[in-house]
Amino acid sequence: MSLIIIGTVAFDAIETPFGKTDKIVGGAATYASLAASYFYNKTKIVAVVGDDFQQADIDTFKEHGIDTEGLQIKAGEKSFFWSGKYHNDMNSRDTLITELNVLENFDPIIPESYQDCEYLMLGNLTPQVQQTVIKRLKNRPKLIVMDTMNFWMDIMMDDLLETIKMVDVLTINDAEARQLSGEYSLVKAARKILAMGPKYLIIKKGEHGALLFHEDQIFSAPALPLADVFDPTGAGDSFAGGFIGYMAKVQEVNFHNMKNAIIYGSALASFCVEKFGTEKLLNLTAEEVSERIQEFIKLSAFTIEVE
Amino acid sequence: MSLIIIGTVAFDAIETPFGKTDKIVGGAATYASLAASYFYNKTKIVAVVGDDFQQADIDTFKEHGIDTEGLQIKAGEKSFFWSGKYHNDMNSRDTLITELNVLENFDPIIPESYQDCEYLMLGNLTPQVQQTVIKRLKNRPKLIVMDTMNFWMDIMMDDLLETIKMVDVLTINDAEARQLSGEYSLVKAARKILAMGPKYLIIKKGEHGALLFHEDQIFSAPALPLADVFDPTGAGDSFAGGFIGYMAKVQEVNFHNMKNAIIYGSALASFCVEKFGTEKLLNLTAEEVSERIQEFIKLSAFTIEVE
Repeated sequence: MSLIIIGTVAFDAIETPFGKTDKIVGGAATYASLAASYFYNKTKIVAVVGDDFQQADIDTFKEHGIDTEGLQIKAGEKSFFWSGKYHNDMNSRDTLITELNVLENFDPIIPESYQDCEYLMLGNLTPQVQQTVIKRLKNRPKLIVMDTMNFWMDIMMDDLLETIKMVDVLTINDAEARQLSGEYSLVKAARKILAMGPKYLIIKKGEHGALLFHEDQIFSAPALPLADVFDPTGAGDSFAGGFIGYMAKVQEVNFHNMKNAIIYGSALASFCVEKFGTEKLLNLTAEEVSERIQEFIKLSAFTIEVE
Repeated sequence: MSLIIIGTVAFDAIETPFGKTDKIVGGAATYASLAASYFYNKTKIVAVVGDDFQQADIDTFKEHGIDTEGLQIKAGEKSFFWSGKYHNDMNSRDTLITELNVLENFDPIIPESYQDCEYLMLGNLTPQVQQTVIKRLKNRPKLIVMDTMNFWMDIMMDDLLETIKMVDVLTINDAEARQLSGEYSLVKAARKILAMGPKYLIIKKGEHGALLFHEDQIFSAPALPLADVFDPTGAGDSFAGGFIGYMAKVQEVNFHNMKNAIIYGSALASFCVEKFGTEKLLNLTAEEVSERIQEFIKLSAFTIEVE
């Protein structure tokens, strides 16, 4: 039994008010698999890179127990590259460079050893590629989580809706939930999106936390207020990875466990932004994670005896 | 012992995507005192109106047990009037008309019977008027809560800082916290604002809930996701009124009670926006309030056994 994470493995060059990096390893599958690795030791990635990707970079995954058999390395090609600059508020950014490179013709090959997949995280990619992964798994996973973004809503809504129909959990941000549903109220937006197929909807609100919708239930998770956000890159992917890693650990898919998974995902996202790139995600201890969870508990707990 | 609420009592003409009203009774002190009246039966207002204010309007306060001895009625003058139109997202609005009228020379007279004030809510007014009220009370109240807005930060920051220094709790929104402190991070903003004098800071984030800061503690309160927001007018004042009304009820000023007071305030705000103007706040039952509190508990509760 395993957890498969599909998404980008890439090089990023990031500039924030606190500094800038050269090309460092990034990508949704990188952040998500590192985050998941703190909860589940059978995490496997499906991704594609060029031969500019170093053995040392691959070793980083292995050191975290992440299976890289599904990481294709294309000789003579270059890895996906993204460069961006964050504004002073750290909530908005400009994309400076996007070079698709190997991603342009990404055919997600699923190794035979991955066919034991029970948990599947579809990182943000074209809806067709996401759908291909589902179809190439001989047995439908117990839980399929899909991340996507406004870009696919703009240019290929039909394909997107077809893929959304096939998944259990959709994660998008509040603006995307409004765009996808045509509803401003997130309650109404959630009703419409749940009618599109997914049984659970997670609306990510960045510094305002996240909302989980399932049938007529809603859970509101806080975000940890941070004094310093060093680099927001990968926060959403760390959230998704922590979320599905925790679900794979606890095994049972229900609303109770998903609420907790959102808190664990939020905790991993809060670590991610404390340093540049994946740096903070590379060396977390179990104690640090436990302490962070305690902070979330303290942050949102209140006790009212209703009369 | 009593709770005094000072603020505007006014006429509003409101337009939202769901309809529009003629001149209806509004104002910060109106919303706040009605909200407080559900928790505390010795609520008294200090405000000023013109002789266009009807006896029936005054009776509404009395029916809710609100003492109106401090409501000055200026013969031959007109009440404060505000007219606004909300955009489709209900989060932004245009002010169409602001007629200060009686508010222009508002001298807040404190009746002798109000000198038993233990809890004081300073609704959004000029910082000088707010300060005058504090000075006219012979004994310093046990708890002074102050609401303010960006407008006073723009035009009279020195007076504002002087008044802020004198209060226990400051309530502002996130943009205002950033403006007042010059810090984008709300954690850093809160540290600076708490250093200005108040022991507690409440940052209101509308549909994203509220944050309470005290020393090194933070509480994150959710907002109830609503399918329909009919009219947001008065939500912040209902929050403040519910908050201080609950504090007056439970008497003891501490972080634990303040967390609960924020939930009660949020509940009252969530009722307020369900109908036009004060309509919903006029006829709540204790059962409705209890049920709403249960919804808040359900919304944000999770149980993690940290290893």
